Amino acid sequence: MAKDFVKRSENFSEWYNELVVRADLAENSAVRGCMVIKPYGYAIWEKMHDALDKMFKDTGHQNAYFPIFIPKSFLSREADHVKGFAKECAVVTHYRLKTNEEGTGVVVDPEARLEEELIVRPTSETIIWSTYKNWIKSYRDLPILCNQWANVVRWEMRTRMFLRTAEFLWQEGHTAHATREEAEAEARRMLDVYADFANNWMAVPVVKGVKSPNERFAGALDTYCIEAMMQDGKALQAGTSHFLGQNFAKAFDVQFLNKENKLEYVWATSWGVSTRLMGALIMTHSDDNGLVLPPKLAPIQVAIVPICKSDEQMKEIDTKVQPIIDALRAKGISVKYDNRPEYKPGWKFTEYEFKGVPVRLAIGPRDLENGTCEVCRRDTLEKITMPIEGIADHVEQLMETIQQNIYQKALDFRMSQTRKVDTWEDFKVEIEKNGFLLCHWDGTTETEEKIKAETKATIRCIPYDAPEEEGKCIYSGKPSHRRVIFARSY
Amino acid sequence: MAKDFVKRSENFSEWYNELVVRADLAENSAVRGCMVIKPYGYAIWEKMHDALDKMFKDTGHQNAYFPIFIPKSFLSREADHVKGFAKECAVVTHYRLKTNEEGTGVVVDPEARLEEELIVRPTSETIIWSTYKNWIKSYRDLPILCNQWANVVRWEMRTRMFLRTAEFLWQEGHTAHATREEAEAEARRMLDVYADFANNWMAVPVVKGVKSPNERFAGALDTYCIEAMMQDGKALQAGTSHFLGQNFAKAFDVQFLNKENKLEYVWATSWGVSTRLMGALIMTHSDDNGLVLPPKLAPIQVAIVPICKSDEQMKEIDTKVQPIIDALRAKGISVKYDNRPEYKPGWKFTEYEFKGVPVRLAIGPRDLENGTCEVCRRDTLEKITMPIEGIADHVEQLMETIQQNIYQKALDFRMSQTRKVDTWEDFKVEIEKNGFLLCHWDGTTETEEKIKAETKATIRCIPYDAPEEEGKCIYSGKPSHRRVIFARSY
Repeated sequence: MAKDFVKRSENFSEWYNELVVRADLAENSAVRGCMVIKPYGYAIWEKMHDALDKMFKDTGHQNAYFPIFIPKSFLSREADHVKGFAKECAVVTHYRLKTNEEGTGVVVDPEARLEEELIVRPTSETIIWSTYKNWIKSYRDLPILCNQWANVVRWEMRTRMFLRTAEFLWQEGHTAHATREEAEAEARRMLDVYADFANNWMAVPVVKGVKSPNERFAGALDTYCIEAMMQDGKALQAGTSHFLGQNFAKAFDVQFLNKENKLEYVWATSWGVSTRLMGALIMTHSDDNGLVLPPKLAPIQVAIVPICKSDEQMKEIDTKVQPIIDALRAKGISVKYDNRPEYKPGWKFTEYEFKGVPVRLAIGPRDLENGTCEVCRRDTLEKITMPIEGIADHVEQLMETIQQNIYQKALDFRMSQTRKVDTWEDFKVEIEKNGFLLCHWDGTTETEEKIKAETKATIRCIPYDAPEEEGKCIYSGKPSHRRVIFARSY
Repeated sequence: MAKDFVKRSENFSEWYNELVVRADLAENSAVRGCMVIKPYGYAIWEKMHDALDKMFKDTGHQNAYFPIFIPKSFLSREADHVKGFAKECAVVTHYRLKTNEEGTGVVVDPEARLEEELIVRPTSETIIWSTYKNWIKSYRDLPILCNQWANVVRWEMRTRMFLRTAEFLWQEGHTAHATREEAEAEARRMLDVYADFANNWMAVPVVKGVKSPNERFAGALDTYCIEAMMQDGKALQAGTSHFLGQNFAKAFDVQFLNKENKLEYVWATSWGVSTRLMGALIMTHSDDNGLVLPPKLAPIQVAIVPICKSDEQMKEIDTKVQPIIDALRAKGISVKYDNRPEYKPGWKFTEYEFKGVPVRLAIGPRDLENGTCEVCRRDTLEKITMPIEGIADHVEQLMETIQQNIYQKALDFRMSQTRKVDTWEDFKVEIEKNGFLLCHWDGTTETEEKIKAETKATIRCIPYDAPEEEGKCIYSGKPSHRRVIFARSY
């Protein structure tokens, strides 16, 4: 299967596109820019969903559901927001079809035109804050800590599966607070949750930071983000958390009586991650043999393949394998025993390797004699033969080892591709090699945009942990107090 | 809270609408016909989702995700299907807004008109079968057993929260099979799953049956359904499972090579339940004091309310209550301990009663002395005082008791409101009292439609367990071999 599979080093972009399709994760649909998420891909997304959902609930959030449609006029209420989202949205103008005159198909019924057009939500701040207006009267109604799992639509012109699609799945948290401090703390707390998830579930090491004003969410006072590095050295923004100030409260007139009985506007945050995380997962770990999945998010954690030449041998192996399956499942490990006779063991090996199953066990006639089996790790492709006795404990340990190993590998790679650059000449050379460039910047949008225009590099973030350091902007030479991360990005 | 709450007997419809809003389940949104599902309502839906999702997976199904948009031309491919759905759909015609000339708002950009309009999915048979065409080549690719959790839109003119909304949440299973027998068995199996869920999770007793041709899903050869009876005696269709024959395979040219190497069209089913189940849940169990929830779907299963006159007493109760909370949680029971000082115990009692929390515990100063607490059941409003010792075991048992009791109560009610009617004169009288009327029918759509026009009653289903019995159609007097259920419905 992986035989005619393109290599990362040859064409990273083609490697990604092909991997997504051939590993049965997703495919393009008949609708421009929209993808079909196939069962195997969706199973990974479900694991992400479940882990994140628990983290949100553990930090006091509740789920709710708001309409998919937003009245057109709502978008205009917040000036920056409409600039950011009006350009790329799906507009519903009619609510009925009718049979055409020839009776051969259907056409839009011109009489069923909506008085006000509806937008398919690109994000839900406006519809949610118009709702919060009715929920909030007093400080006693605060905070509101809601999250929504939903589909959203942004009419992207150039789409790529998982990374940039017209429709995508995501969660969007929308919280309301009595004070600025509380809202800022919430925005930062949720970024911590995202970073925790990326590091410890996805095994994708991320840098936490704050966006430059130019890269902020449309309508935010501050955007916090986590940035990951893909294997081609490009950056991928994996999640964002916004401190929205009182912008949406003012746009929708959401005020509350504080403890001193005075009216105040409510403070807001919003934060989201999407199916884009699937792209980050794939491009961080996978290799020229296919997907590599972190054990914590792998739908199948162990595949067991019997090797035999007769039906009797197969039956013998079936019997031998059952206690292994039971022992693994008792430990909460998901197992697929693939004894389909119509496929050969070699085909199955390639298949599970390509689909990123963390551990494969193989049992053949000699193993039956010796009470052994072959254990193969997907991350290192290392194979060892070991006794069946105690195999479940070993595999359980391996899950942890693989999870840590692929994280460390990704972290090492990122460190190796992160470097300080101090002159504009160097910058122009270094950016061609991709990676994160730590540079001084004068803090102006003007400089940022000039750098982007000349090199396609953007400021990914001002890292939380950037030490104070006096220096000069690589572009303007003006003074700067800390380095920021420049990179080309997805 | 429940003081000025309308009674079921006075105005059932108003009682329902008010209950939905006052119990914090949902509210109407700024978008016509679309609702906001509030956190408490959504928490119930999540429990439904989780239970159903496990049942689907246990029967071999996988989740996937298909686009929200359907190209207009796809709808026309299956003749009956387009008749059923084209009349009520949201049509996307443009993909961009622009600032208006005055600069005061946004308008649709006339240059951004789509070549082919997109329909927001009212159901996904067409987009899914256009996808399955690429997935299915041979009998080895079958069966495909996919389910999707999604939002759908049907432009209903008269909407009611949960029961009939323009946008609603649902799951839709879409399966593909090599034989007619296998597809029919699948459609029936999934109806069994739905009936199991309704009976054993929702505590809503349902009748399993098959729809008359007139009431079939647009594009189906057979529609199986579960029908429940609400407390006003009206029927509510709680779930449907369709045997689609080869209709969609033919419409989208989905053929497979069978074992004899011959091309055949694929056989299909689809099946779904939606947030409408929330309406069924509410209208089956709730009473004039508010919601009544089955313990298995209640977000809060036990509320504990302290009664005290001083901060010291409160602290003492806090200490006493903690082991109870721990013991309940250890049994997997969800507990809310409400020691908020700003609300009085009486207010809390009404609140948890109104929200349908199955069991309430109250602990006051006398209980502290005696080592007792008060246990109140929501279903019967019965209160007993009992020792704290062993309280968790008692509550665990109560969960089971309440679950069974409300099921039995609903079943008894349905039985009491189900009656045989044998003449047209009686029918016209009896239908005014609502309930299920078991009647002979001549099997023609013509008769069915006349009965509907005269009485608003429809055939809810031909029950699986209807015994063969010779009789005469109540309307036409023509021969009939079994009774069907007539009722007015939601």
